[in-house]
Amino acid sequence: MSHPHPDLGLPPALAPGALRIVALGGLGEIGRNMTVFEIDGRLLIVDCGVLFPEPDQPGVDLILPDFDYIRDRLDDVEALVLTHAHEDHIGAVPYLLRERKDIPIVGSRLTLALIESKLVEHRIQPTTVEVVEGQRHRFGPFECEFLAVNHSIPDALAVAIRTDAGLVLHTGDFKMDQLPMDGRLTDLGGFARLGAEGVDLLMSDSTNAEVPGFVTSERDIAPVIDDIFHSSDQRIIVACFASHVHRVQQVLDAAEQHGRKVALMGRSMVRNMGVARDLGYLRVPAGLMVDSRDIESWPPEDVVLICTGSQGEPMAALSRMANRDHPVRIAEGDTVLLASSLVPGNETAVNKVINGLTRWGARVIHKGNARVHVSGHAAAGELLYVLNLTRPSNFLPVHGEWRHMRAHAKLAALTGVPDEHIVIAEDGVVVDLVDGRTSIVGAVPCGYVFVDGTSVGDVTDVALKDRRILGDEGFISVVVVIDSTTGRLTGGPEIHARGSGIDPDVFDDVIPQIEKALQEAAADGIADVQQMRRLVRRAVGRWVSDTYRRRPMIIPVVVEI
Amino acid sequence: MSHPHPDLGLPPALAPGALRIVALGGLGEIGRNMTVFEIDGRLLIVDCGVLFPEPDQPGVDLILPDFDYIRDRLDDVEALVLTHAHEDHIGAVPYLLRERKDIPIVGSRLTLALIESKLVEHRIQPTTVEVVEGQRHRFGPFECEFLAVNHSIPDALAVAIRTDAGLVLHTGDFKMDQLPMDGRLTDLGGFARLGAEGVDLLMSDSTNAEVPGFVTSERDIAPVIDDIFHSSDQRIIVACFASHVHRVQQVLDAAEQHGRKVALMGRSMVRNMGVARDLGYLRVPAGLMVDSRDIESWPPEDVVLICTGSQGEPMAALSRMANRDHPVRIAEGDTVLLASSLVPGNETAVNKVINGLTRWGARVIHKGNARVHVSGHAAAGELLYVLNLTRPSNFLPVHGEWRHMRAHAKLAALTGVPDEHIVIAEDGVVVDLVDGRTSIVGAVPCGYVFVDGTSVGDVTDVALKDRRILGDEGFISVVVVIDSTTGRLTGGPEIHARGSGIDPDVFDDVIPQIEKALQEAAADGIADVQQMRRLVRRAVGRWVSDTYRRRPMIIPVVVEI
Repeated sequence: MSHPHPDLGLPPALAPGALRIVALGGLGEIGRNMTVFEIDGRLLIVDCGVLFPEPDQPGVDLILPDFDYIRDRLDDVEALVLTHAHEDHIGAVPYLLRERKDIPIVGSRLTLALIESKLVEHRIQPTTVEVVEGQRHRFGPFECEFLAVNHSIPDALAVAIRTDAGLVLHTGDFKMDQLPMDGRLTDLGGFARLGAEGVDLLMSDSTNAEVPGFVTSERDIAPVIDDIFHSSDQRIIVACFASHVHRVQQVLDAAEQHGRKVALMGRSMVRNMGVARDLGYLRVPAGLMVDSRDIESWPPEDVVLICTGSQGEPMAALSRMANRDHPVRIAEGDTVLLASSLVPGNETAVNKVINGLTRWGARVIHKGNARVHVSGHAAAGELLYVLNLTRPSNFLPVHGEWRHMRAHAKLAALTGVPDEHIVIAEDGVVVDLVDGRTSIVGAVPCGYVFVDGTSVGDVTDVALKDRRILGDEGFISVVVVIDSTTGRLTGGPEIHARGSGIDPDVFDDVIPQIEKALQEAAADGIADVQQMRRLVRRAVGRWVSDTYRRRPMIIPVVVEI
Repeated sequence: MSHPHPDLGLPPALAPGALRIVALGGLGEIGRNMTVFEIDGRLLIVDCGVLFPEPDQPGVDLILPDFDYIRDRLDDVEALVLTHAHEDHIGAVPYLLRERKDIPIVGSRLTLALIESKLVEHRIQPTTVEVVEGQRHRFGPFECEFLAVNHSIPDALAVAIRTDAGLVLHTGDFKMDQLPMDGRLTDLGGFARLGAEGVDLLMSDSTNAEVPGFVTSERDIAPVIDDIFHSSDQRIIVACFASHVHRVQQVLDAAEQHGRKVALMGRSMVRNMGVARDLGYLRVPAGLMVDSRDIESWPPEDVVLICTGSQGEPMAALSRMANRDHPVRIAEGDTVLLASSLVPGNETAVNKVINGLTRWGARVIHKGNARVHVSGHAAAGELLYVLNLTRPSNFLPVHGEWRHMRAHAKLAALTGVPDEHIVIAEDGVVVDLVDGRTSIVGAVPCGYVFVDGTSVGDVTDVALKDRRILGDEGFISVVVVIDSTTGRLTGGPEIHARGSGIDPDVFDDVIPQIEKALQEAAADGIADVQQMRRLVRRAVGRWVSDTYRRRPMIIPVVVEI
C-alpha cells in the first residue's frame, strides 16, 4: 500500500505558483503521518509521525516516513507544523531533526511541551514557534492559520495554508465533541468562514469515515467510571493511553470523589501527565497522588493505579500483572478498566491480557462490555458537517487505510464534491494544485523505513523476508572445510539447526548425501565455492523437504583452508 | 493457560463407581476440544479437535490435544463421540486414529460423512456408529443419549452420558435459533426432561457467555443478501466457512432468484458442499453450478463466486484476489461479501484483504457494516435457558477462554447453582464426580502438541522460542576452523548473517575481536570446543549489542581439523 501506483512515473517539474502536495506517510495506513507542501521551491511539512509495525514486520520497533524525497532539500523547509502530540504525528521528529536540527517546529503549547520532553531523551534542543488557535503565521510563501480542533489529546490544531495557489485546509485529527471536557470546541465557525472565503482543497481525517453517526462525548464516560468505583471494594487499575489527559482527568476526579489515592505507572504516563499538570491541562487535587512504589502499602480499597499497557504491550505493567510477573498481584475482586480503544493488530495481545487478569479473579471492564472509551476521530456524520461547512473545490481524504479513504471519498461525493475533484492518493503520490484544480501528476519512491534498535533503515524488506522464513521454519547450517589445493573435504560436514523442530540426531542421515555431492563435485573438477555451496544447499534442502515437508532456511558454509 | 494449576498434583486413583472428567483441550482456549470421561477403567472421549496457532507460535500448522494422558490406555476407549464436524471438534481425529485406528467413531450422519471424507485424505477407513437425535446407545459403562442442537453446521448433537456416577449433559456447540433453516431445533424439551430426571453435571458451551441477549436467526441474513444482490451489477464474491451449509444455501437461493450462476472455490468448500448435497443437506437447483475455472467466461453480472478465505488466509483465493495474484481480477463495482465471523487473531489479515479489495474498487460488505453473519454459539440469554431447564447439581463451563468460562460461571450462579458446585477447570485438570458432587482432585500434564509439516510433536516450546528470536532478530553465524593439534585458527572467522539487518561489510570490525579472543584462549591453553564457542559467542554478542543495541541469535561453529 505504501508503494506508488505502478503506472505512475516521476512527476514533472513544479510550475511556478503551483502547489505540490506529497504525503510521505499516512495515506493507505494509519500512522507515520507526514505531508510535504511545496511552492516556488520552498517546503512546509505538516506532522512527522511513526507507524507501529504489523506481525509481518517482525522485530521492527517503529516505521518512519521515507525522508528520501526531501533529504537533499531540508534547507528549503520553512517549518514543521505539528497538529497535535500523538506518536503517529510527532514520533519521527527526532529522526528528522537528526538530519537538520534547526527546522522550526510549530505547534500549540501542550504539543510543543510534549515533543520537547521527548526530544530531551534524544538530547535534541529544538527551535520552536508556539502558536494559538486564531493566529496567523507566515512561513516563507506559506501563510498558516491555526484553528482549534477537539481530539483525544488537548490543544490539537487544524491548519489552513494559504499560498498563491489557493487555500488548503488540513484538519489534523479531530472530532466534534459538543461538550468537551476543556470547553475547547472544534472551530466550526472558522471552518464556515474558510468555506465562505473558498477552500481550494480540503484534507480531512478519514479514520472513522466508515463509522456511521456521531462520536459520543468524552463526558459520557464519567457515569460509567463512577459506577465502577461504586461497585469496587478492592483495587482499581485503569489502563489508558499515556497522552489521554482528559481520560486521566476523569479517573482522577472519580478517585477524589470516592476517597481513593492515585498512583501513575509507566514512563510515558508519568512524563506526559507531569507536563500536562505543570501547564495546567491536568488538574491534580493536592494529596491525591501517591508513589506507585508504595502502592502495596495501601489497602486495596483505597487506591487506583493508572498505567499504560492498554494495548497488551508485553513489557508493560498490565501484561506483567496478567502473567503474575509484577509486584502488583492481581487478586479476586480487583477491577481492571481498559479505558482505551483497541488499536487494530493488538487484538490477540489484549485478549491474552484480559484472560490472564480474569484467570486471577479480576473483573475486567473494557470497551467491549461498557462505555469506557470514545473514539478521538469524527465519524461519518461529523465528517459530513465539515464537508458541508467548508464546501471544498477539491477533496483529498487523509489519515486512513484504503477502506477509510474510499468511504470518506464517498461522503465527499454525497455532499456535492464532483467525483473528478476527489483525489485518493497513497504515500508518495504527487498531487498538484494548479488553477484551483488538484490532480495526480506522478509518484516518488516512498518505502518503509524501519527502526530496529539504534539503527534506522538498515533493516530492509529482504531482512524482513529472511526473518519471516527464520521465524516460521528456523534454519539448518552446514559447515564444510575444503582443502583449497585438493578440493577435498577436510572438516565437517558439521550441521547446526535452530527452530527447525528437527531432531539433531537425524542429521546423520543426510551427511552421506552431502559427502557424496561434494565427492562428485571434486570428481567433476568443481572447485568454485559458490557452486559447492549450491550443491550442499540442494542436497540438504531436498532431504528436509522429502522427509519433513518443510522449508527451513539452509545456510551452507564452505571454508577453504 | 494450558498448563495445570501450579499447585495441583497428580490425581489419586479413581474410586470404583466414580466418574472422572479430564479435558485435554478446549478449557482456557477456543479450539482442540477433547474431553475424556472415565469410570471403572473404561474411557469415553467426546470430540477431538484442533486449535489454530497464535502469532507467538510461528510456523505451526495446527495444535493438537495432548494424547499423553490416554496414550497407554487407548484400548480402554469405548468410543469417540463427535458432537459436530467443525475442525475444532474433529480436526485431530486423524492423529488419534494413527495411534489406534479402530476406535469407534460415533456421530450424526453429516458429521460422519464429513470426517470420513477428511479421513480419506489420510488414507484411514474408520469404524463408525451413526446415531440420530433421540437415540440411546451404550458404550461399555457409558449410556449415551443424543439430543438435537442447532449450530452453524447441520446435524449437531448434544450428548447426555449416564453412568453409575450420575448423569452428565454435554451440550456440544449450540445456539437456539427458533426459526432454523432446516427446522431442526435445539431440543429444549429434552433438556427439560433431563432436568426433571436430575442432571448431576452440566458441561455447556461458553463461547458467547460474555455476549448479552440472544443470537439473531440465520434467516435474518436472507434479506440482507437479497439487498446486496439487488444493488450489484457486477461480480459478486462471497467468502464464508467451508462447512457453513446453511449460509451457502442462502447464497444459492439468492443466486437462483437473481438469475446468477454459482461457482465454488477452495478445496474444502468443494468437498464439504459435495458431501452436503449428496446427503440432502444442501439443495442445489439443477443448472445453477458452473465450474470455477470457467468463471471468467461469464459476464460479471451473471455469476456468484463462493469461496474460502474469509479469515484472510494468505494462500486462499480471496487474499490472492486482494493482492492481484489470482486469475479473478477484482474490478471497480464488484461486490465482496465476507459472510462469516472474524475469528480472534485474524483481524490484521482480514483488514489487509478488505483494504486490498477496496483498493481495486470492490465494495466490501462484512459483519462490521451489515448483518451478514450471525454467531453459531448461544449468547448469555440463551445460556440461561439451558441452565434453568436442566437445573444442574454441578456446573463445568466448557469451550472457552478464561473470560468466557468465568462469565458462564457467573450466569450459572445467577440461576441458583451454588458457588461451591461450580468448577472452572483448565486443560489437564482432573474433575471427579462422586456422590453427586464434582471436585478438582488433581491435574495431569497437558501441553500443546504442534503439527508442522508432516511432523507431530517434534516442534517444541524450545524450537518456538528459537523461532521467535530468529524471527525478531535474525542470526549471525561465525565459523572458525581450528587445528586440533596446535589449537591455532587455520580457517575463518567466516561470518554469515540473515535477518539481522546488519550490513555484512561491518563484520570486518568484529573479526579482530574474535581472533583476539581465540589467541588469548590458545595462550591460556584452552582447547575445549565448547569453551571456544562460548568465547566467540561472547565477543560477537558484546559487539552487536554495543554497536546496534540488538540481540540476534549468535551461532558459533568451531570445526576442528
